Amino acid sequence: MRTFIYPGSFDPVTNGHLDIIERASKICDRLIVGVLVSHNKKPLFTMDERVDMLGRAIRSCNCNNVEVEDFSGLLVDFVKKKNADVIIKGLRAVSDFEYELQMALLNKNQSPEIETLFMMSSINYSFLSSSMVKEIARYDGNIKGLVPECIKEDIISKFTGRGISDS
Amino acid sequence: MRTFIYPGSFDPVTNGHLDIIERASKICDRLIVGVLVSHNKKPLFTMDERVDMLGRAIRSCNCNNVEVEDFSGLLVDFVKKKNADVIIKGLRAVSDFEYELQMALLNKNQSPEIETLFMMSSINYSFLSSSMVKEIARYDGNIKGLVPECIKEDIISKFTGRGISDS
Amino acid sequence: MRTFIYPGSFDPVTNGHLDIIERASKICDRLIVGVLVSHNKKPLFTMDERVDMLGRAIRSCNCNNVEVEDFSGLLVDFVKKKNADVIIKGLRAVSDFEYELQMALLNKNQSPEIETLFMMSSINYSFLSSSMVKEIARYDGNIKGLVPECIKEDIISKFTGRGISDS
Amino acid sequence: MRTFIYPGSFDPVTNGHLDIIERASKICDRLIVGVLVSHNKKPLFTMDERVDMLGRAIRSCNCNNVEVEDFSGLLVDFVKKKNADVIIKGLRAVSDFEYELQMALLNKNQSPEIETLFMMSSINYSFLSSSMVKEIARYDGNIKGLVPECIKEDIISKFTGRGISDS
Amino acid sequence: MRTFIYPGSFDPVTNGHLDIIERASKICDRLIVGVLVSHNKKPLFTMDERVDMLGRAIRSCNCNNVEVEDFSGLLVDFVKKKNADVIIKGLRAVSDFEYELQMALLNKNQSPEIETLFMMSSINYSFLSSSMVKEIARYDGNIKGLVPECIKEDIISKFTGRGISDS
Amino acid sequence: MRTFIYPGSFDPVTNGHLDIIERASKICDRLIVGVLVSHNKKPLFTMDERVDMLGRAIRSCNCNNVEVEDFSGLLVDFVKKKNADVIIKGLRAVSDFEYELQMALLNKNQSPEIETLFMMSSINYSFLSSSMVKEIARYDGNIKGLVPECIKEDIISKFTGRGISDS
Repeated sequence: MRTFIYPGSFDPVTNGHLDIIERASKICDRLIVGVLVSHNKKPLFTMDERVDMLGRAIRSCNCNNVEVEDFSGLLVDFVKKKNADVIIKGLRAVSDFEYELQMALLNKNQSPEIETLFMMSSINYSFLSSSMVKEIARYDGNIKGLVPECIKEDIISKFTGRGISDS
Repeated sequence: MRTFIYPGSFDPVTNGHLDIIERASKICDRLIVGVLVSHNKKPLFTMDERVDMLGRAIRSCNCNNVEVEDFSGLLVDFVKKKNADVIIKGLRAVSDFEYELQMALLNKNQSPEIETLFMMSSINYSFLSSSMVKEIARYDGNIKGLVPECIKEDIISKFTGRGISDS
Repeated sequence: MRTFIYPGSFDPVTNGHLDIIERASKICDRLIVGVLVSHNKKPLFTMDERVDMLGRAIRSCNCNNVEVEDFSGLLVDFVKKKNADVIIKGLRAVSDFEYELQMALLNKNQSPEIETLFMMSSINYSFLSSSMVKEIARYDGNIKGLVPECIKEDIISKFTGRGISDS
Repeated sequence: MRTFIYPGSFDPVTNGHLDIIERASKICDRLIVGVLVSHNKKPLFTMDERVDMLGRAIRSCNCNNVEVEDFSGLLVDFVKKKNADVIIKGLRAVSDFEYELQMALLNKNQSPEIETLFMMSSINYSFLSSSMVKEIARYDGNIKGLVPECIKEDIISKFTGRGISDS
Repeated sequence: MRTFIYPGSFDPVTNGHLDIIERASKICDRLIVGVLVSHNKKPLFTMDERVDMLGRAIRSCNCNNVEVEDFSGLLVDFVKKKNADVIIKGLRAVSDFEYELQMALLNKNQSPEIETLFMMSSINYSFLSSSMVKEIARYDGNIKGLVPECIKEDIISKFTGRGISDS
Repeated sequence: MRTFIYPGSFDPVTNGHLDIIERASKICDRLIVGVLVSHNKKPLFTMDERVDMLGRAIRSCNCNNVEVEDFSGLLVDFVKKKNADVIIKGLRAVSDFEYELQMALLNKNQSPEIETLFMMSSINYSFLSSSMVKEIARYDGNIKGLVPECIKEDIISKFTGRGISDS
């Protein structure tokens, strides 16, 4: 059985992430979406909110070999703990590429038996990131088509009743 | 009548910005320099100071179809409010390019009728940025030729009488 | 009156080119598509064929301020001869960017009064190039959606009755 | 059963290719190395020589789920003919990345059901290419460590008794 | 006598830095490693700790024409104060390159007589940075081979007895 | 004594090359400009013409520790034959960077004791290349400021009396 790990912050999950999840789930037996507890970035959504939104988004697209789990610490340790052997990442642009190349080499240095595979982001989501979604939502822009329909309200309500400068 | 919007933080305006303003003003009927109220970067100069410095710099180069205005929120909303149809941006390097490509695609997603045009930075200013100007001024380096002559003192005096580490 | 020049080989015109033509025609008064007689690349289509296909493609999208003309020699000389002042180019990727930056600086060196403006390619055509269209057509792949409908047969028939290796 | 296709010219196979073959063979059930009959590059080695060298190199590293086959035409047609669903490619550098991104998007356009996966080249082979191997061998440089030991002589003998300029 | 300056934060020194120090020391008469007092990044190690670790690392590799010194303010001022004429920097990746190109042009603008030279990072350290070392050490990953053996314990002990989130 | 090698085709030498020659000659004791006999590119100027133009250009700028010599074969072999230990190269753009990184790593693989150093091209020549000079001269464009004054006529006369398409 082949298990892939798809790690990220998912703050919040976008249609770009969901596209990778759908495509990756088709080429492995089990896909674990690993939601990172980061020590140096303060997320907009709590871990519970992020895991919950991911869960609903995944159910909406019928990927039934996908699980969501949070983790902290080194990615390679999480991969080993889950008996997985492949990390899957999406690539949008050259700047992604350079950072991901560094991370893949570093992970290879820590655990040579773990492989990192990359997928190019779908053309329609190549400009999309969680921070852009938040920036648009903050100013009442239109996030339709950028995030899964079922979590749209979670994002919009996060900014309602908040002053523009308080994040 | 064709109105272009040139958005930025201009904290402070550099000769690189002024070069784009001069060149862009020649290929449109009206150019509005939009100074962004950013919620996540604390500027060195206040909005009033930034608008005032831009105003003086523009008068010094005789671009009489150029106006300066501050805005907050989404750029596309500002563009529509001003009845403009083109956003103009300068490109210096590959890292600029990737970010601007993302922003242009995002703006297209929000407002397909707004076009973003890019100009390559003048060769003499390709290394120049507001942060570099501030870094040099902080340590008494020479900013002559990097910013419009008429605002040089505004920048230098900002750092006089301040300890080196307090920004 | 503002005249833009959109130069290229157009061997053959793709939907990516046509998208730039449509968008550029809206922000100038007159757009001249300049088809380059290149001395070092042997085109698949003759100059007459390329100009003819462009003409038909442009008529199909109702851009009535667009003309097509061939030119040889330096681009800046063609721009001056046509009393234009702006060169417009499409940017797809970082590799485009670097080359176009070099060309823009070189053209600025030759004729400082001529401005080059860039548009990001439409997201759906960011992977598209004339050579890819030819490569696909050569092996009977599907070019629908990649080139204007009205020139599809011109391209397909170019490869019919030819051995695969004889270009 | 999951079948991956690893396409290339392999003119000749290098240790960089072999590293991708070994790593990819571990994450699929069957790996088919597809050797491309290219219509526009004249290879140094004939198709038979390239397939033979690949075969020996693969046997030397005990990858017993790997086959070698030549193909011409579109890659996506070869993938479908072999009942495979994944194309696997190695990435060395930013220039690789941009080209491969274009090709992946194009292949997605032709056959949405086929997925392209990327692996970063092993750090020790990130500078290595078939052309560099040929350039070194041409001038009696040392290719030890750059190509599989068992094909070293095939490459060296290709240049023996040939004048330096006749390729 | 030719003096080179190798500037950086060295928070902490890695094997990548040490490799540049060793190689650079062979092509100049005197190499001064300049440790920057930065006003906008809070380092993990104090200036004394960073200078001390660098000193031990350099002694361990027998580079006897290398000195370590801290500096604050503009790099070009430090270079002049030390009667040096060359700044030496390591390049790992495209993102390094763009930033370093900007800095080299800026320094040229400030002091045309000072030259910046670049060395490509050794292939084994191309993925390595001080921040990655800290990230790995924070979560008890293995930093062997990433930093000089003699400073390994300094880094590990920095994170012992500290909660994961308190840096 | 420190000897640097500056290799290239110099077909013809440009002001960008001459700038690197002048700056490099100041940081070594002896600089040898190595003119490459390439087996796969047909130069416009013969080896004798290229060496002669380089010689005149160098005399015009009073670099008296610079020599010009042609070489064929591997660069590392030429470096060793001349008892040099450093290869010096100019970097203009990201595409240069990636290629030069590959070459530096390859040369390190062949001869670990030889070091490659890079200088950023002067800002005024960042867009300049020998091929662009030839392209401009071919169509009677203005090459003043792009090549050393003393070789301008050599280039112009190369294209006089020749048909535009016969190179």
